[in-house]
Amino acid sequence: MRILILGGDGYLGWPTAMYLSARGHDVHIIDNYLRRRVHAEGGTDSLTPIAADMTTRVAAWREVTGQTITATLGDLIEWPVVERAFRDFAPHTVIHYGQIPSAPYSMIDRHRSVFTQTNNVVSTLNILWAMHYFAPQAHLVKLGTMGEYGTPNIDIEEGWIDITCNGRSDRLPFPKLPGSFYHCSKVHDSTNIEFACRVWGIAATDLNQGVVYGIETEETRLDPRLATRFDYDEAWGTALNRFCVQAVLGYPLTPYGKGTQTRGFLNILDTLRCVELASLTPAAPGEFRVFNQFTEQFSINQLAVLVQHAGKEYGLDVRIDQIANPRVEKEEHYYNAKHTKLLDLGLEPHLLSETLVEHMFEVIQRHRARIITEHIMPRTSWSGGRHVVAEQPLSALARS
Amino acid sequence: MRILILGGDGYLGWPTAMYLSARGHDVHIIDNYLRRRVHAEGGTDSLTPIAADMTTRVAAWREVTGQTITATLGDLIEWPVVERAFRDFAPHTVIHYGQIPSAPYSMIDRHRSVFTQTNNVVSTLNILWAMHYFAPQAHLVKLGTMGEYGTPNIDIEEGWIDITCNGRSDRLPFPKLPGSFYHCSKVHDSTNIEFACRVWGIAATDLNQGVVYGIETEETRLDPRLATRFDYDEAWGTALNRFCVQAVLGYPLTPYGKGTQTRGFLNILDTLRCVELASLTPAAPGEFRVFNQFTEQFSINQLAVLVQHAGKEYGLDVRIDQIANPRVEKEEHYYNAKHTKLLDLGLEPHLLSETLVEHMFEVIQRHRARIITEHIMPRTSWSGGRHVVAEQPLSALARS
Repeated sequence: MRILILGGDGYLGWPTAMYLSARGHDVHIIDNYLRRRVHAEGGTDSLTPIAADMTTRVAAWREVTGQTITATLGDLIEWPVVERAFRDFAPHTVIHYGQIPSAPYSMIDRHRSVFTQTNNVVSTLNILWAMHYFAPQAHLVKLGTMGEYGTPNIDIEEGWIDITCNGRSDRLPFPKLPGSFYHCSKVHDSTNIEFACRVWGIAATDLNQGVVYGIETEETRLDPRLATRFDYDEAWGTALNRFCVQAVLGYPLTPYGKGTQTRGFLNILDTLRCVELASLTPAAPGEFRVFNQFTEQFSINQLAVLVQHAGKEYGLDVRIDQIANPRVEKEEHYYNAKHTKLLDLGLEPHLLSETLVEHMFEVIQRHRARIITEHIMPRTSWSGGRHVVAEQPLSALARS
Repeated sequence: MRILILGGDGYLGWPTAMYLSARGHDVHIIDNYLRRRVHAEGGTDSLTPIAADMTTRVAAWREVTGQTITATLGDLIEWPVVERAFRDFAPHTVIHYGQIPSAPYSMIDRHRSVFTQTNNVVSTLNILWAMHYFAPQAHLVKLGTMGEYGTPNIDIEEGWIDITCNGRSDRLPFPKLPGSFYHCSKVHDSTNIEFACRVWGIAATDLNQGVVYGIETEETRLDPRLATRFDYDEAWGTALNRFCVQAVLGYPLTPYGKGTQTRGFLNILDTLRCVELASLTPAAPGEFRVFNQFTEQFSINQLAVLVQHAGKEYGLDVRIDQIANPRVEKEEHYYNAKHTKLLDLGLEPHLLSETLVEHMFEVIQRHRARIITEHIMPRTSWSGGRHVVAEQPLSALARS
């Protein structure tokens, strides 16, 4: 299968490219290094050292495995880049990771909220038109986010909900309560893609993904040059990554607010398998298929306690100190999101364990000298603006 | 009340400015003449001759009424324009018409779909940030569209719907099935505005407006220089306007497809009153209030028959010839949209009558020499692209 991976230089894009290449697919990746550039702008960096560019990555992949991944440096908001990729590569499957994925980044200021939304919406519009013009039979596998749904007081269905009202019924898009301008941009994408499926007959799968954790995959382990990035800073990292880094440094773990916020999570290995499963069993023409892509629900406090316990096993003395929540979000809420469709296709989840957390400790310990400590704590508040929102608790700094 | 009207040079924006100025409000308008420019680009024009620019309009308004409307020529996607307007004018109410409102235009090609969505989404984002920074107590009155809902098989509620599922309930945004990339852009706006209300405490009213008809208002009648535009072409006009023009020309009326598509409609006089009612009774801080702004539902065939009957009274022999539908839309569907909230606030509807249609005939007859006949029939198909989609039925051309 010819698979075009958009955002193929990213945390998930690059491991997906290797995973699918290793399984015999013809993989082409496109990326504009936006993620690398915003890290440079913000003074943050991946904990794991990653290869300097896509050329180095695909050369190392060929050297190590004998397999070929081709790559284009280009920006998906530029139509000629998208047009050429679709005309030249003629993909059967388009896996679209090529977006700005940070909620805090989108809330820093007006400029970044507009940049996030234009970048994400225009890239997806370009891809939809390219499919309509050049690849009407192709299947779009789009990475969405569970964050599109927010925290409604009813069960979260997989994309669509059957509503009966005044004796009439319809199956309609599940209502969304996104939690940041970034999450809004993903709702916009879902709206545009559903429309394109309905009107143009495009086949699309929207993978509303939970929070991904994990540093290594079967392929990244083959060679240091094949490593994927690992972010733990306030804008591009996630809570579990941040907690693991804090634990290794001897800092308290810092859940935002009460820590009772609950979300869906999954291992990076399951992301790769889910994307593969969706690609191998495509949506029907005209179908806007939505999968909720996560394997377990945890509250932030549950994650913190898990890291605390794993730390104890690993010889780390880990404290938990809640800090003021820089976000505007419900802290106490109902949360029950359906996620059976990928299991039905054959997904066998890798569940979160203390063993996995201890492995994360090892990797973090190995790269400890690269940790940029001043970017762990939140600096972006949802009221808008970037400033010191919360300090690392002093007790911790004194101990570290 | 200081009222900022964005898109104040448009079909509705300009009459709204005069209406509110006449009622003692301090009105400032902003426009970038985008509507005038896309008409120039497409070879179309308003049937009614309108004043050359905003300067002429506001000067005429002052001369005729002694009232002052101030105006800024500027583009809402440029932040300095928006920032200065909010800082200098310090509005109590912001009425936002400043968007590209054409479904066909957004479906012509990739470029115009991207332009429509970026223009509409970025302008609204800029306004939300400006309110957050400079006018957190102001009330946003945003013009949305009934077209955001599409044609679900259940009653359409006013923006929010109470959903009970598996024994739990929540009040959630009503699911949307927009019918073009333009309509998608308005759904994006609603998503962004709801988020800004929820997180920043902004007060907003989203007026999901039906199709507006009517050429004149109390204020436009005062002087020819105060006229508002009247569009009947395939991209910027609406079915009723087009039917009236066809009737005057002796062309058959041309419903798209079966003509059983049903929509909400309202008189321009009711648009002005609705916007006034929403402004005088603002949403609460943090409230995302949605009104369905229309007064009557009609199928396209019902409109055609109404125009046919009015034509008979007026001495016109009017035929109806359905043509192939250039849009992808359900032609036979359930449609029952709630619209009680504006009535509760005191709206007294001007219902559509043959008398009003006959008055439209008179105005069209007066400007008959200005009609650009080659832009009446659809040239934009929903499959994408602008070409001859349907010809005016030959029988008609022979007669005209």
